[in-house]
Parts: sequence; structure tokens; C-alpha cells
Amino acid sequence: AERKNILMVYAHEEPKSFNGSMKDLAVQALKRQGHNVEVSDLYEMNFEPRTTKKDIKGNPKDKDYFKYPVEAGIAFANDNLSDDIKAEQDKVRAANLIIFQFPIAWGSFPAIMKGWLDRVLCYGFAYGDGKFMDASPLNGKKVLLSFTTGCPAEFYTNTGLLGDMDILLWPMQNNLRFCGFDILAPQIVYAPAHCEEKDRDAIIEAWQTRLKGLIKEKPVRFIPLEDFDK
Amino acid sequence: AERKNILMVYAHEEPKSFNGSMKDLAVQALKRQGHNVEVSDLYEMNFEPRTTKKDIKGNPKDKDYFKYPVEAGIAFANDNLSDDIKAEQDKVRAANLIIFQFPIAWGSFPAIMKGWLDRVLCYGFAYGDGKFMDASPLNGKKVLLSFTTGCPAEFYTNTGLLGDMDILLWPMQNNLRFCGFDILAPQIVYAPAHCEEKDRDAIIEAWQTRLKGLIKEKPVRFIPLEDFDK
Ligand SMILES: Cc1cc2nc3c(=O)[nH]c(=O)nc-3n(C[C@H](O)[C@H](O)[C@H](O)COP(=O)(O)OP(=O)(O)OC[C@H]3O[C@@H](n4cnc5c(N)ncnc54)[C@H](O)[C@@H]3O)c2cc1C
Ligand SMILES: Cc1cc2nc3c(=O)[nH]c(=O)nc-3n(C[C@H](O)[C@H](O)[C@H](O)COP(=O)(O)OP(=O)(O)OC[C@H]3O[C@@H](n4cnc5c(N)ncnc54)[C@H](O)[C@@H]3O)c2cc1C
Ligand SMILES: [Zn+2]
Ligand SMILES: [Zn+2]
Repeated sequence: AERKNILMVYAHEEPKSFNGSMKDLAVQALKRQGHNVEVSDLYEMNFEPRTTKKDIKGNPKDKDYFKYPVEAGIAFANDNLSDDIKAEQDKVRAANLIIFQFPIAWGSFPAIMKGWLDRVLCYGFAYGDGKFMDASPLNGKKVLLSFTTGCPAEFYTNTGLLGDMDILLWPMQNNLRFCGFDILAPQIVYAPAHCEEKDRDAIIEAWQTRLKGLIKEKPVRFIPLEDFDK
Repeated sequence: AERKNILMVYAHEEPKSFNGSMKDLAVQALKRQGHNVEVSDLYEMNFEPRTTKKDIKGNPKDKDYFKYPVEAGIAFANDNLSDDIKAEQDKVRAANLIIFQFPIAWGSFPAIMKGWLDRVLCYGFAYGDGKFMDASPLNGKKVLLSFTTGCPAEFYTNTGLLGDMDILLWPMQNNLRFCGFDILAPQIVYAPAHCEEKDRDAIIEAWQTRLKGLIKEKPVRFIPLEDFDK
């Protein structure tokens, strides 16, 4: 069996949380299978979520009009991004699979993880110059969104208060697809804080079962580029 | 004419940006109409996006297992939230209308603004204890999402690469509706960096025209609570 590199990008304030358990289980299981696992524990790292001038070493190209996406692209090309961004990009470059583990917050990534996406997946590194989707430098890598919710599954249907989960998944997953990642089916744990102990145990077992075959899983089908208008 | 309180929550790294112009125009027009306008300039404030223990003054209720949403709710009830969160909540409390002005980032709010939502709209303040949508303490206030994109409008259709804009709007707007806000139609500026000067001028004029009648605008229809399964 081939040895793979897995990056776990993890965001929870509390190691004992359900998210913490999901992360620990994945790290243990994948290591036991002989893979390399790297963890970016964003709260532990106090990861910077804001896109600012500090992300660029030295002077921005245009010091009178700071265009973040443009300057980040130039800094990437010249190896002038801040060290924290470079460290994460190195981990992404090495990874065959990235697992994002997080509690859903206002229907999306928590801010600290959103900041990881905003800062790490910059122009030149993840897309740009006509390179996106299968042409992205990151193409071939896989992504799995593994997250928990506060609300039960019934809220996330097309007649439920928070709408069909697929609608929330679209912006989260499609932008990763845009950056070339192949998307594995998400691992969604509904309302772990509001269910019984035995339900939680069942969720944990299902995750452990999935982890056994994770490395061999095929991505979900996203519409290929040639099928789009633009 | 009644004097209203407007809160502008603004996120852009550069004052000269198109977003900066959209913000300035709104502030000027609404002040000229005699309204009070408060601006939260998130980058200027270096607003903290991360949800951490620092958001709670004194000791968390459970110091061995930090549950952020629970602790934030308790801290809100006991007036123990950090001063930066309290200051924003005071502005929200006073506001009749909140305008969010931002460049879209990976199909959603930039991280710094996502952090504003994650931290300010806490349990007890914006929802909770069975109180949400029309029963939220914030009900009656209006929200307008005003944002720019990098990609042109054709990308944001149901056959376009980034999908129908309504799908991206759903998680952004519906969670604000959940917190009781009435939602005004969004102001979307497509690709201001990639169009001609005259197109930008037309966009600016359209915004100025809209701003004249903004305070009297009716919200878009969201399905009322009694129509939902849950
Ligand atoms: C700003 C903000 C916005 C939010 N927005 C949304 C939203 O839009 N939609 C939504 O649905 N929710 C929302 N939430 C709620 C949030 O998603 C949930 O609080 C979170 O997903 C719960 O996961 P957790 O890891 O924190 O659970 P925890 O509360 O840490 O854990 C739940 C239970 O699991 C137990 N547990 C831990 N490990 C194990 C194990 N190995 N085996 C068995 N049991 C275990 C714990 O003891 C605990 O009793 C929001 C929360 C915040 C802070
Ligand atoms: C992390 C990240 C993720 C992103 N993800 C996405 C995404 O998912 N989808 C997407 O579509 N885009 C995305 N983008 C691109 C981003 O949304 C655009 O760069 C942004 O919306 C452009 O707005 P701006 O205010 O920065 O424009 P600017 O570049 O500041 O302005 C554009 C032009 O307007 C001119 N201008 C300014 N004021 C005026 C005025 N008053 N009158 C006339 N002209 C004026 C300026 O001189 C400039 O030439 C992303 C960017 C980043 C950094
Ligand atoms: Zn579904
Ligand atoms: Zn549409």
C-alpha cells in the first residue's frame, strides 16, 4: 500500500470537543495505516485570519493602492509571502489529501478557517493566469470537509429552516474544486451536542469505518470544465 | 422624515478601493439625508475574527471544557463579553439598518467580516432560547449585503462556473434572517477591477440612485417561519 501525505486543517477551541475527537480519530487511524499525517491546529497556532499588508514581506508593488489579491500573487511569485502562509502552502504542496475538521458557523467555515482559505489559497499557488480546476497547480489533491452542526439534520432539508445542506456545501466545496481539488463526500455530524451518548458512539464508529477506506475513496462528480458556459 | 441609525460594517484593506468608494458614497448620501451613520471599519480596527476564551471576561463557567457558543451566551447574559464585542453589539442594538460592504472572498464573507458575524451575533444577543427569526431580539432591523466580485456576472449563473449567485446568497442572508433581520435586495457589483471606467461610473451612479430611496425600501420576501417543517 502506498504511503500518502494527509494534512488535517482543524479548527476548534477545545481539544475535548467532538471536533477534537473526530480529528484525533482520523490522525490515529491514518497513521496506523502507515500514512504521514500533518495537523494544522488553527486555534493552537493562533492562526491569523485577516488578509493584510503583513502577508507580504518587503514593500508591496503599489504602495499607494493596496490590492490584496494582486500583491499576494506577486509576493507568491517572488517568494515574499509571510512565513506562516508559506508554511501552510508547503503542507498543502506535500499533501495528497486535506481534511478540514470544524464546527459549522453561520452556515460556513468558522472565521479562523475562512482566513486559512483566504490567505493560503492565493493567486499563483492555487489558481490564476487561466489556471483553475483541472489546470490548477493543486489538481490531483483531494479534499474532505468533515464538520459538525448545532442544528439537527431536519433543519437542513429543502423545507427545513436552514435549507438543503447541498446549498451550503456548494460555496464551500466548489471554490475548492475551483482550486483544483477533487472533493470527497463530506462527513457531516448533525447536532453531536444534542443527541444521546449511544448516537454519538454510533457516529464515532461510522467515522472509524469510513477512515479504513478513505484513502481509496473516489471523489464525488463535479461537472467538468468543458460543460460550463464560462 | 424620520432620522434612522445606519451601521456600515466595512471590510477592505484599501481606502481607495472600489469597496471603499461604495462605503464612502453610502455614508455621505445617508448623512446628507439626515440619518446617523456609524462605521465599523474592520481592517482599520484590526478587528479580531477568532472566537477564543479572550471573548469572555473572567473565568468561563466550565474551565475544563470550553464550549464557545455556550460560554458566549453566559457571558452575554452576565455582561461579561469582551469590550470589542460589546461595542459592536451596542452599534447593532442602535441600528435600524446594517450595510455590509465587502469584496467576496471564496464565495462568502472575507474572514475578518466572518469573524464579526461569528463573535457579535452570539447566543442571547441575536438568537437563542427558542428566539429566532421574527422572535429574535434583533427583529425589525434591516440588513443589506453590498459586495463586489472578481469574476463577471456570467460566472454566477446556474450554468456558470461559480453557480447561481442566489446559492451563495442563501447561507449569507438566511443566517441573518435567522437572527431576525429583514433582508434588503443585495447590491452586487460584478468585476469592478475588470471593466471600463464608464461601466464603473454607471455602477456608482446606480448606487447613488438606490441610496436615495434605500431607507424606504421593503425587504425581499423570506418564507415565514410557519411555512417550515422545523
Ligand atoms: C459562531 C457560531 C455560529 C454557529 N452557527 C451554526 C450554524 O449556522 N448552524 C448550526 O447548525 N450550528 C451552528 N453553530 C453551532 C456549532 O456548529 C456547534 O456548536 C458545533 O458544531 C458542535 O460541535 P462541538 O465539537 O463543539 O461539540 P461539543 O459540544 O464539543 O461536543 C458534543 C458532545 O460530544 C461529546 N463527545 C466528545 N468527544 C466524544 C467522543 N469521542 N465520543 C462520544 N462523545 C463525545 C462531548 O462530551 C459533548 O457532550 C454555531 C456556533 C457558533 C459558535
Ligand atoms: C482571498 C480572496 C478570495 C476571493 N474570492 C473570490 C470569489 O470567490 N469570487 C470572485 O468573484 N472574486 C473573488 N475574489 C476577488 C475579489 O472579490 C475582488 O478582487 C474584489 O471584489 C474587487 O473589489 P475591490 O474593491 O478590491 O476593487 P479595486 O481593485 O479596489 O477597484 C477596482 C477598480 O475600481 C476603481 N475605482 C475605485 N473607486 C472608484 C470610483 N469611485 N469610481 C470609479 N472607479 C473607481 C479603482 O481605481 C480600480 O481600478 C477574491 C479575492 C481574494 C483576496
Ligand atoms: Zn440534500
Ligand atoms: Zn440568479
